Amino acid sequence: MRRIKITLDYIGTNYCGWQRQPSLDTVQSRIESAIKKLTGETVSIVGSGRTDAGVHALGAVAHIDTQSEIPAKNFMSGLNHFLPPDIRILSAEEVDENFHARFSAVEKTYCYIIYCGKVDKAVYHNRAVRVESELDIEKMKTASRAFIGKKDFRSFMSTGADTKTTERTVKDIKIETDGDLIKIYYTADGFLYNMVRLMTGVLIKAGKGEIDGDGIEKLIEMKSKNAVNLVMQPHGLYLVEVKY
Amino acid sequence: MRRIKITLDYIGTNYCGWQRQPSLDTVQSRIESAIKKLTGETVSIVGSGRTDAGVHALGAVAHIDTQSEIPAKNFMSGLNHFLPPDIRILSAEEVDENFHARFSAVEKTYCYIIYCGKVDKAVYHNRAVRVESELDIEKMKTASRAFIGKKDFRSFMSTGADTKTTERTVKDIKIETDGDLIKIYYTADGFLYNMVRLMTGVLIKAGKGEIDGDGIEKLIEMKSKNAVNLVMQPHGLYLVEVKY
Repeated sequence: MRRIKITLDYIGTNYCGWQRQPSLDTVQSRIESAIKKLTGETVSIVGSGRTDAGVHALGAVAHIDTQSEIPAKNFMSGLNHFLPPDIRILSAEEVDENFHARFSAVEKTYCYIIYCGKVDKAVYHNRAVRVESELDIEKMKTASRAFIGKKDFRSFMSTGADTKTTERTVKDIKIETDGDLIKIYYTADGFLYNMVRLMTGVLIKAGKGEIDGDGIEKLIEMKSKNAVNLVMQPHGLYLVEVKY
Repeated sequence: MRRIKITLDYIGTNYCGWQRQPSLDTVQSRIESAIKKLTGETVSIVGSGRTDAGVHALGAVAHIDTQSEIPAKNFMSGLNHFLPPDIRILSAEEVDENFHARFSAVEKTYCYIIYCGKVDKAVYHNRAVRVESELDIEKMKTASRAFIGKKDFRSFMSTGADTKTTERTVKDIKIETDGDLIKIYYTADGFLYNMVRLMTGVLIKAGKGEIDGDGIEKLIEMKSKNAVNLVMQPHGLYLVEVKY
């Protein structure tokens, strides 16, 4: 048995998220079906984490155990042959059996893309989330510092996912403009369910001048799942990178 | 009768280009059908130019003549209501009847987006064209100067379009990198059919060291429609702006 680590990107628009679910079209089931076609094996692929319907990935990671003797490198071209063009394997390599796509991950980076404008643009359809108001980037940057550090982020978690602890270490939040887009990069040792989409909702409030760093600290201190009810839409969210 | 100027963006992937054609789904026919629904009128919308199937627009311009009394501003929200999300009216304003979306245009800017990489990415599917080789940007910039100026660009035109003259003035070519993308912006008083896609094919050759500015000048001087047979794919091309 050999373990293959794959890195992939996908546009989540046409899928019901990452995780395999009966009779739903998901990224995981597409990859498992491509493996079946490539090696004949029925395998259960392990992802670095789940993404919801509509969420994209620029650098997701997964592993597969295979008895096939296909060289790891050829997994890339082989799987891409059987995958749709909105899911692409970017690399494949043989790894030690101790490597685990989910449990070995030490750091993840997500990006949330906001388009500020009065009217929707076709070019951002399903790729960025529109915010009507102008946002003060400096206020967002200042407020974002309240998230940095090892904290109990229970207030920034939606129900629906099991987790041993709600403590996470947010290492960095970088906010940059790119033309008419605002891109917020979040790096942490891990994220709770909907954490990035909830933090983004609060940072948008900060950009409108409706909350500041102190207000965010108070929300965090509440340690209540009902503290924040601003889950931003999925299609602005991108899983950028997973580090091991 | 009032003349309304509209500015719009669209992702061309799902359309057979701009121009109305019997029984084909085109951007023009979608907009005309939306106008029919909004005002009840059967109008022929005049675009700043045609784009081919798969080509995108960030800022296309068109005009409509209408007898409707709907305020120009409301054309935007009204048409957007009846249009699919991959075609969006960005603005609408009443203009003088001397304004003509095609004939009044004095300058157009197109962008061609190249992704340099060994393997396709899902995120660039239908949005950028992949080039396998690494490209030398400086060589591309130097070579691009050969296109600047008022010249007969017959060598950079595909057959299939009628035009009075093949002389055009290329005002500026700007080449920039954006992450793993190369974006080439072309500004001219107008472009011949496939001119941007042909110039891009030659600039990619320049990036590989296969042609330089002198070589491009020779191609231009040939004034032959068969001089260049490097029409780049449509889905990397964006109509950025039309000036009046």
